[in-house]
Amino acid sequence: MSDTPRLRVLLVGASGTLGRAVAAELGARHDIIAAGSKSGDIRIDITDPASIATALKQAGELDAVVCAAGEVAFVPLAAIEPAAIAESVYGLGLRNKLMGQVNLALAARAQLRDGGSITLTTGILTDNPIAAGSSATMVNAAVEGFVRAAAIELPRGIRINVVSPNVLQESMPAYAPFFRGFEPVAAARAALAYSRSVEGLQTGQVYRVV
Amino acid sequence: MSDTPRLRVLLVGASGTLGRAVAAELGARHDIIAAGSKSGDIRIDITDPASIATALKQAGELDAVVCAAGEVAFVPLAAIEPAAIAESVYGLGLRNKLMGQVNLALAARAQLRDGGSITLTTGILTDNPIAAGSSATMVNAAVEGFVRAAAIELPRGIRINVVSPNVLQESMPAYAPFFRGFEPVAAARAALAYSRSVEGLQTGQVYRVV
Repeated sequence: MSDTPRLRVLLVGASGTLGRAVAAELGARHDIIAAGSKSGDIRIDITDPASIATALKQAGELDAVVCAAGEVAFVPLAAIEPAAIAESVYGLGLRNKLMGQVNLALAARAQLRDGGSITLTTGILTDNPIAAGSSATMVNAAVEGFVRAAAIELPRGIRINVVSPNVLQESMPAYAPFFRGFEPVAAARAALAYSRSVEGLQTGQVYRVV
Repeated sequence: MSDTPRLRVLLVGASGTLGRAVAAELGARHDIIAAGSKSGDIRIDITDPASIATALKQAGELDAVVCAAGEVAFVPLAAIEPAAIAESVYGLGLRNKLMGQVNLALAARAQLRDGGSITLTTGILTDNPIAAGSSATMVNAAVEGFVRAAAIELPRGIRINVVSPNVLQESMPAYAPFFRGFEPVAAARAALAYSRSVEGLQTGQVYRVV
Protein backbone atom coordinates (compact mmCIF):
# COMPACT_ATOMS: atom_id res chain seq x y z
CA MET A 1 0.00 0.00 0.00
CA SER A 2 1.17 3.52 -0.79
CA ASP A 3 1.52 6.19 1.87
CA THR A 4 -1.45 8.40 2.72
CA PRO A 5 -1.10 11.70 0.82
CA ARG A 6 -0.41 14.83 2.87
CA LEU A 7 -3.76 16.53 3.59
CA ARG A 8 -4.73 20.12 4.38
CA VAL A 9 -6.80 19.91 7.59
CA LEU A 10 -8.70 22.80 9.20
CA LEU A 11 -8.92 22.03 12.92
CA VAL A 12 -11.47 24.12 14.82
CA GLY A 13 -10.92 24.13 18.57
CA ALA A 14 -7.23 23.40 18.11
CA SER A 15 -6.17 24.84 21.47
CA GLY A 16 -8.50 22.72 23.63
CA THR A 17 -7.54 19.52 25.42
CA LEU A 18 -8.98 17.36 22.66
CA GLY A 19 -7.90 19.72 19.86
CA ARG A 20 -4.25 19.63 20.93
CA ALA A 21 -4.31 15.82 20.88
CA VAL A 22 -5.91 15.80 17.42
CA ALA A 23 -3.30 18.30 16.21
CA ALA A 24 -0.52 16.05 17.52
CA GLU A 25 -2.00 12.91 15.91
CA LEU A 26 -2.89 14.37 12.50
CA GLY A 27 -0.05 16.92 12.46
CA ALA A 28 2.48 14.10 12.29
CA ARG A 29 1.37 13.33 8.74
CA HIS A 30 -0.67 16.33 7.56
CA ASP A 31 -0.77 20.13 7.40
CA ILE A 32 -2.90 21.48 10.24
CA ILE A 33 -4.50 24.91 10.02
CA ALA A 34 -5.41 25.70 13.62
CA ALA A 35 -8.58 27.69 14.23
CA GLY A 36 -10.11 28.89 17.46
CA SER A 37 -12.16 31.61 19.09
CA LYS A 38 -9.17 33.10 20.91
CA SER A 39 -6.07 31.63 19.26
CA GLY A 40 -4.80 29.79 16.21
CA ASP A 41 -3.79 30.58 12.62
CA ILE A 42 -7.41 31.59 11.97
CA ARG A 43 -10.01 33.07 14.34
CA ILE A 44 -13.52 31.60 14.22
CA ASP A 45 -16.73 32.01 16.22
CA ILE A 46 -18.80 28.94 15.32
CA THR A 47 -21.99 30.62 16.59
CA ASP A 48 -21.65 33.27 13.85
CA PRO A 49 -22.23 32.11 10.25
CA ALA A 50 -20.37 35.16 8.91
CA SER A 51 -17.32 34.30 11.03
CA ILE A 52 -17.45 30.70 9.75
CA ALA A 53 -17.57 31.92 6.15
CA THR A 54 -14.60 34.24 6.64
CA ALA A 55 -12.55 31.58 8.39
CA LEU A 56 -13.16 28.99 5.67
CA LYS A 57 -12.21 31.46 2.92
CA GLN A 58 -8.98 32.20 4.80
CA ALA A 59 -8.27 28.48 5.07
CA GLY A 60 -8.49 27.98 1.30
CA GLU A 61 -8.81 24.56 -0.35
CA LEU A 62 -9.08 21.76 2.19
CA ASP A 63 -9.09 17.99 2.42
CA ALA A 64 -10.64 17.86 5.89
CA VAL A 65 -12.49 20.01 8.39
CA VAL A 66 -12.40 18.79 11.99
CA CYS A 67 -14.38 20.40 14.80
CA ALA A 68 -13.19 19.77 18.36
CA ALA A 69 -15.21 22.68 19.77
CA GLY A 70 -18.73 23.02 21.13
CA GLU A 71 -20.30 24.26 24.34
CA VAL A 72 -23.46 23.30 26.23
CA ALA A 73 -24.86 24.37 29.60
CA PHE A 74 -24.98 21.92 32.51
CA VAL A 75 -28.08 22.69 34.60
CA PRO A 76 -30.23 20.33 36.73
CA LEU A 77 -33.54 19.56 35.02
CA ALA A 78 -35.36 20.84 38.12
CA ALA A 79 -33.94 24.30 37.43
CA ILE A 80 -34.92 24.36 33.73
CA GLU A 81 -38.14 26.16 32.83
CA PRO A 82 -39.96 26.23 29.47
CA ALA A 83 -38.58 29.03 27.31
CA ALA A 84 -38.08 30.04 23.70
CA ILE A 85 -34.64 29.07 22.35
CA ALA A 86 -33.16 32.54 22.83
CA GLU A 87 -33.94 32.50 26.57
CA SER A 88 -33.65 28.76 27.16
CA VAL A 89 -30.97 26.88 29.09
CA TYR A 90 -30.84 24.74 25.93
CA GLY A 91 -30.11 27.79 23.74
CA LEU A 92 -26.34 27.76 24.31
CA GLY A 93 -25.99 24.14 23.21
CA LEU A 94 -28.37 24.58 20.25
CA ARG A 95 -26.53 27.69 19.00
CA ASN A 96 -23.00 26.51 19.79
CA LYS A 97 -22.40 22.75 19.84
CA LEU A 98 -25.30 21.92 17.49
CA MET A 99 -25.75 24.72 14.95
CA GLY A 100 -22.10 25.80 15.29
CA GLN A 101 -21.00 22.38 14.07
CA VAL A 102 -23.87 22.05 11.56
CA ASN A 103 -23.10 25.45 10.04
CA LEU A 104 -19.38 24.64 9.93
CA ALA A 105 -20.19 21.42 8.06
CA LEU A 106 -22.51 23.21 5.63
CA ALA A 107 -19.91 25.92 4.96
CA ALA A 108 -17.12 23.34 4.59
CA ARG A 109 -18.71 21.99 1.40
CA ALA A 110 -17.47 24.97 -0.62
CA GLN A 111 -13.84 24.53 0.47
CA LEU A 112 -13.49 20.75 0.50
CA ARG A 113 -11.91 18.88 -2.39
CA ASP A 114 -13.67 15.81 -3.84
CA GLY A 115 -13.64 13.01 -1.29
CA GLY A 116 -12.80 15.41 1.54
CA SER A 117 -14.14 14.90 5.02
CA ILE A 118 -15.93 16.66 7.86
CA THR A 119 -15.50 15.35 11.42
CA LEU A 120 -17.64 16.68 14.27
CA THR A 121 -17.57 15.96 18.01
CA THR A 122 -20.19 14.77 20.49
CA GLY A 123 -19.43 12.66 23.58
CA ILE A 124 -20.36 9.79 25.85
CA LEU A 125 -23.42 11.67 27.17
CA THR A 126 -25.36 11.05 23.95
CA ASP A 127 -26.31 7.61 25.19
CA ASN A 128 -25.31 7.85 28.85
CA PRO A 129 -27.06 10.76 30.54
CA ILE A 130 -25.87 12.26 33.82
CA ALA A 131 -27.41 14.69 36.31
CA ALA A 132 -27.62 18.21 34.84
CA GLY A 133 -26.73 16.79 31.42
CA SER A 134 -30.03 17.01 29.52
CA SER A 135 -28.71 19.70 27.19
CA ALA A 136 -25.52 17.76 26.47
CA THR A 137 -27.43 14.55 25.70
CA MET A 138 -30.04 16.35 23.57
CA VAL A 139 -27.49 18.38 21.61
CA ASN A 140 -25.06 15.48 21.10
CA ALA A 141 -27.91 13.32 19.82
CA ALA A 142 -28.90 16.08 17.39
CA VAL A 143 -25.35 16.37 16.06
CA GLU A 144 -25.19 12.60 15.51
CA GLY A 145 -28.57 12.71 13.75
CA PHE A 146 -27.39 15.51 11.48
CA VAL A 147 -24.29 13.50 10.58
CA ARG A 148 -26.32 10.37 9.74
CA ALA A 149 -28.58 12.39 7.46
CA ALA A 150 -26.00 14.71 5.88
CA ALA A 151 -23.81 11.72 4.99
CA ILE A 152 -26.31 10.49 2.37
CA GLU A 153 -26.76 13.92 0.73
CA LEU A 154 -23.26 15.43 0.60
CA PRO A 155 -21.93 15.89 -2.96
CA ARG A 156 -18.61 14.92 -4.64
CA GLY A 157 -17.79 12.08 -2.27
CA ILE A 158 -17.52 14.45 0.67
CA ARG A 159 -17.78 12.40 3.86
CA ILE A 160 -19.00 13.29 7.35
CA ASN A 161 -18.50 11.46 10.64
CA VAL A 162 -18.63 12.25 14.32
CA VAL A 163 -16.34 11.25 17.18
CA SER A 164 -18.00 10.55 20.53
CA PRO A 165 -15.34 10.26 23.22
CA ASN A 166 -15.81 9.23 26.83
CA VAL A 167 -14.81 11.85 29.41
CA LEU A 168 -11.12 12.66 28.94
CA GLN A 169 -8.52 11.69 31.53
CA GLU A 170 -7.15 15.22 31.21
CA SER A 171 -10.57 16.67 32.18
CA MET A 172 -11.13 14.54 35.26
CA PRO A 173 -9.66 17.03 37.77
CA ALA A 174 -12.58 19.34 36.88
CA TYR A 175 -15.28 16.84 35.83
CA ALA A 176 -14.81 13.84 38.13
CA PRO A 177 -17.81 14.61 40.39
CA PHE A 178 -20.14 14.51 37.35
CA PHE A 179 -18.64 11.37 35.83
CA ARG A 180 -18.34 8.92 38.73
CA GLY A 181 -17.94 5.40 37.41
CA PHE A 182 -17.11 6.49 33.88
CA GLU A 183 -13.83 5.12 32.55
CA PRO A 184 -11.89 8.15 31.26
CA VAL A 185 -9.93 7.91 28.01
CA ALA A 186 -6.69 9.73 27.21
CA ALA A 187 -7.13 12.58 24.72
CA ALA A 188 -4.41 10.95 22.60
CA ARG A 189 -6.56 7.82 22.33
CA ALA A 190 -9.67 9.83 21.43
CA ALA A 191 -7.56 11.56 18.75
CA LEU A 192 -7.12 8.23 16.94
CA ALA A 193 -10.82 8.28 16.06
CA TYR A 194 -10.35 11.61 14.24
CA SER A 195 -7.59 9.96 12.25
CA ARG A 196 -9.95 7.11 11.31
CA SER A 197 -12.49 9.64 10.10
CA VAL A 198 -10.06 11.88 8.19
CA GLU A 199 -7.78 9.18 6.78
CA GLY A 200 -10.39 6.43 6.34
CA LEU A 201 -13.16 6.15 3.77
CA GLN A 202 -16.32 5.68 5.86
CA THR A 203 -19.14 8.19 6.10
CA GLY A 204 -22.11 8.65 8.41
CA GLN A 205 -20.29 6.94 11.27
CA VAL A 206 -20.27 7.65 14.98
CA TYR A 207 -16.81 6.69 16.25
CA ARG A 208 -17.31 5.97 19.95
CA VAL A 209 -14.15 6.05 22.07
CA VAL A 210 -15.14 4.36 25.31
CA MET B 1 -54.77 -8.22 38.15
CA SER B 2 -57.01 -5.24 38.77
CA ASP B 3 -58.18 -2.97 35.98
CA THR B 4 -56.09 0.03 35.01
CA PRO B 5 -57.51 3.14 36.73
CA ARG B 6 -59.17 5.75 34.56
CA LEU B 7 -56.54 8.41 33.71
CA ARG B 8 -56.79 12.07 32.73
CA VAL B 9 -54.75 12.42 29.53
CA LEU B 10 -53.90 15.67 27.76
CA LEU B 11 -53.40 14.84 24.08
CA VAL B 12 -51.67 17.54 22.05
CA GLY B 13 -52.15 17.18 18.30
CA ALA B 14 -55.40 15.32 18.82
CA SER B 15 -56.83 16.17 15.41
CA GLY B 16 -53.93 14.82 13.35
CA THR B 17 -53.77 11.40 11.71
CA LEU B 18 -51.74 9.98 14.57
CA GLY B 19 -53.55 11.97 17.26
CA ARG B 20 -56.97 10.63 16.22
CA ALA B 21 -55.67 7.07 16.47
CA VAL B 22 -54.17 7.76 19.90
CA ALA B 23 -57.47 9.31 21.02
CA ALA B 24 -59.34 6.21 19.85
CA GLU B 25 -56.93 3.83 21.59
CA LEU B 26 -56.61 5.65 24.92
CA GLY B 27 -60.11 7.12 24.87
CA ALA B 28 -61.59 3.64 25.18
CA ARG B 29 -60.31 3.47 28.77
CA HIS B 30 -59.37 7.02 29.79
CA ASP B 31 -60.50 10.65 29.75
CA ILE B 32 -58.93 12.48 26.82
CA ILE B 33 -58.54 16.25 26.86
CA ALA B 34 -57.91 17.10 23.22
CA ALA B 35 -55.56 20.01 22.49
CA GLY B 36 -54.44 21.48 19.19
CA SER B 37 -53.39 24.63 17.41
CA LYS B 38 -56.69 24.97 15.54
CA SER B 39 -59.15 22.64 17.29
CA GLY B 40 -59.79 20.65 20.43
CA ASP B 41 -61.02 21.24 23.98
CA ILE B 42 -57.96 23.41 24.56
CA ARG B 43 -55.94 25.53 22.10
CA ILE B 44 -52.16 25.31 22.26
CA ASP B 45 -49.24 26.64 20.23
CA ILE B 46 -46.30 24.47 21.26
CA THR B 47 -43.82 27.01 19.88
CA ASP B 48 -45.02 29.55 22.49
CA PRO B 49 -44.12 28.82 26.14
CA ALA B 50 -46.90 31.16 27.34
CA SER B 51 -49.47 29.25 25.30
CA ILE B 52 -48.19 25.96 26.74
CA ALA B 53 -48.50 27.32 30.29
CA THR B 54 -52.06 28.52 29.70
CA ALA B 55 -53.12 25.25 28.10
CA LEU B 56 -51.72 23.15 30.93
CA LYS B 57 -53.43 25.30 33.56
CA GLN B 58 -56.72 24.86 31.69
CA ALA B 59 -56.18 21.10 31.60
CA GLY B 60 -55.84 20.89 35.39
CA GLU B 61 -54.43 17.86 37.19
CA LEU B 62 -53.26 15.18 34.79
CA ASP B 63 -52.01 11.61 34.75
CA ALA B 64 -50.48 11.80 31.30
CA VAL B 65 -49.41 14.31 28.67
CA VAL B 66 -49.07 12.96 25.14
CA CYS B 67 -47.71 14.99 22.23
CA ALA B 68 -48.57 13.83 18.71
CA ALA B 69 -47.63 17.17 17.15
CA GLY B 70 -44.40 18.58 15.74
CA GLU B 71 -43.28 20.11 12.46
CA VAL B 72 -39.97 20.13 10.60
CA ALA B 73 -38.97 21.44 7.17
CA PHE B 74 -38.04 19.03 4.38
CA VAL B 75 -35.33 20.64 2.24
CA PRO B 76 -32.53 19.04 0.21
CA LEU B 77 -29.15 19.48 1.92
CA ALA B 78 -27.81 21.12 -1.25
CA ALA B 79 -30.30 23.95 -0.71
CA ILE B 80 -29.42 24.50 2.97
CA GLU B 81 -26.97 27.30 3.75
CA PRO B 82 -25.31 28.13 7.08
CA ALA B 83 -27.55 30.42 9.12
CA ALA B 84 -28.37 31.40 12.68
CA ILE B 85 -31.31 29.43 14.10
CA ALA B 86 -33.85 32.20 13.47
CA GLU B 87 -33.06 32.24 9.73
CA SER B 88 -32.11 28.57 9.32
CA VAL B 89 -34.03 25.83 7.52
CA TYR B 90 -33.46 23.93 10.78
CA GLY B 91 -35.17 26.66 12.82
CA LEU B 92 -38.72 25.37 12.28
CA GLY B 93 -37.89 21.90 13.56
CA LEU B 94 -35.80 23.23 16.46
CA ARG B 95 -38.56 25.63 17.58
CA ASN B 96 -41.51 23.33 16.87
CA LYS B 97 -40.84 19.58 17.02
CA LEU B 98 -37.86 19.85 19.37
CA MET B 99 -38.36 22.78 21.77
CA GLY B 100 -42.15 22.59 21.42
CA GLN B 101 -42.10 19.06 22.81
CA VAL B 102 -39.30 19.80 25.31
CA ASN B 103 -41.15 22.84 26.68
CA LEU B 104 -44.39 20.86 26.85
CA ALA B 105 -42.59 18.18 28.86
CA LEU B 106 -41.01 20.75 31.19
CA ALA B 107 -44.36 22.48 31.74
CA ALA B 108 -46.16 19.17 32.25
CA ARG B 109 -44.24 18.56 35.51
CA ALA B 110 -46.40 21.08 37.37
CA GLN B 111 -49.68 19.41 36.33
CA LEU B 112 -48.76 15.73 36.50
CA ARG B 113 -49.67 13.60 39.48
CA ASP B 114 -47.02 11.36 41.07
CA GLY B 115 -46.10 8.58 38.66
CA GLY B 116 -47.66 10.42 35.74
CA SER B 117 -46.19 10.20 32.27
CA ILE B 118 -45.07 12.30 29.34
CA THR B 119 -45.01 10.75 25.86
CA LEU B 120 -43.40 12.55 22.93
CA THR B 121 -43.21 11.67 19.24
CA THR B 122 -40.31 11.30 16.80
CA GLY B 123 -40.33 8.90 13.82
CA ILE B 124 -38.47 6.39 11.68
CA LEU B 125 -36.22 9.10 10.23
CA THR B 126 -34.19 9.31 13.47
CA ASP B 127 -32.16 6.31 12.39
CA ASN B 128 -33.16 6.03 8.73
CA PRO B 129 -32.42 9.27 6.88
CA ILE B 130 -34.02 10.13 3.54
CA ALA B 131 -33.35 12.80 0.92
CA ALA B 132 -34.31 16.26 2.22
CA GLY B 133 -34.71 14.80 5.70
CA SER B 134 -31.69 16.18 7.56
CA SER B 135 -33.83 18.41 9.78
CA ALA B 136 -36.21 15.56 10.62
CA THR B 137 -33.37 13.20 11.52
CA MET B 138 -31.52 15.86 13.53
CA VAL B 139 -34.59 17.03 15.43
CA ASN B 140 -35.94 13.53 16.09
CA ALA B 141 -32.55 12.48 17.46
CA ALA B 142 -32.53 15.53 19.74
CA VAL B 143 -36.01 14.70 21.08
CA GLU B 144 -34.92 11.12 21.81
CA GLY B 145 -31.78 12.42 23.55
CA PHE B 146 -33.84 14.78 25.68
CA VAL B 147 -36.11 11.91 26.71
CA ARG B 148 -33.18 9.65 27.69
CA ALA B 149 -31.73 12.43 29.84
CA ALA B 150 -34.93 13.85 31.33
CA ALA B 151 -36.04 10.35 32.38
CA ILE B 152 -33.30 10.14 35.03
CA GLU B 153 -34.00 13.59 36.51
CA LEU B 154 -37.80 13.89 36.58
CA PRO B 155 -39.24 14.08 40.12
CA ARG B 156 -42.07 12.17 41.87
CA GLY B 157 -41.89 9.10 39.66
CA ILE B 158 -42.91 11.09 36.60
CA ARG B 159 -41.96 9.07 33.53
CA ILE B 160 -41.07 10.15 29.99
CA ASN B 161 -40.92 8.09 26.81
CA VAL B 162 -41.02 8.70 23.08
CA VAL B 163 -42.84 6.87 20.30
CA SER B 164 -41.01 6.59 16.97
CA PRO B 165 -43.41 5.32 14.31
CA ASN B 166 -42.60 4.31 10.76
CA VAL B 167 -44.38 6.33 8.06
CA LEU B 168 -48.12 5.92 8.52
CA GLN B 169 -50.24 4.03 6.00
CA GLU B 170 -52.68 6.93 6.16
CA SER B 171 -49.93 9.37 5.11
CA MET B 172 -48.67 7.39 2.14
CA PRO B 173 -50.84 9.13 -0.48
CA ALA B 174 -48.86 12.30 0.27
CA TYR B 175 -45.49 10.90 1.39
CA ALA B 176 -44.93 7.78 -0.74
CA PRO B 177 -42.33 9.39 -3.06
CA PHE B 178 -40.14 10.21 -0.05
CA PHE B 179 -40.54 6.82 1.63
CA ARG B 180 -40.01 4.26 -1.15
CA GLY B 181 -39.23 0.88 0.35
CA PHE B 182 -40.39 1.82 3.85
CA GLU B 183 -43.07 -0.47 5.28
CA PRO B 184 -45.91 1.80 6.42
CA VAL B 185 -47.71 1.10 9.70
CA ALA B 186 -51.35 1.79 10.45
CA ALA B 187 -51.91 4.75 12.78
CA ALA B 188 -53.95 2.42 15.00
CA ARG B 189 -50.90 0.18 15.40
CA ALA B 190 -48.63 3.14 16.18
CA ALA B 191 -51.20 4.22 18.78
CA LEU B 192 -50.56 1.02 20.77
CA ALA B 193 -47.08 2.33 21.61
CA TYR B 194 -48.64 5.40 23.27
CA SER B 195 -50.72 3.03 25.36
CA ARG B 196 -47.55 1.16 26.41
CA SER B 197 -45.99 4.45 27.48
CA VAL B 198 -49.05 5.86 29.29
CA GLU B 199 -50.32 2.63 30.85
CA GLY B 200 -46.96 0.91 31.40
CA LEU B 201 -44.29 1.68 33.96
CA GLN B 202 -41.13 2.17 31.89
CA THR B 203 -39.29 5.45 31.49
CA GLY B 204 -36.60 6.75 29.13
CA GLN B 205 -37.73 4.39 26.38
CA VAL B 206 -37.95 4.87 22.62
CA TYR B 207 -40.90 2.76 21.43
CA ARG B 208 -40.17 2.08 17.77
CA VAL B 209 -43.17 1.01 15.69
CA VAL B 210 -41.63 -0.41 12.51
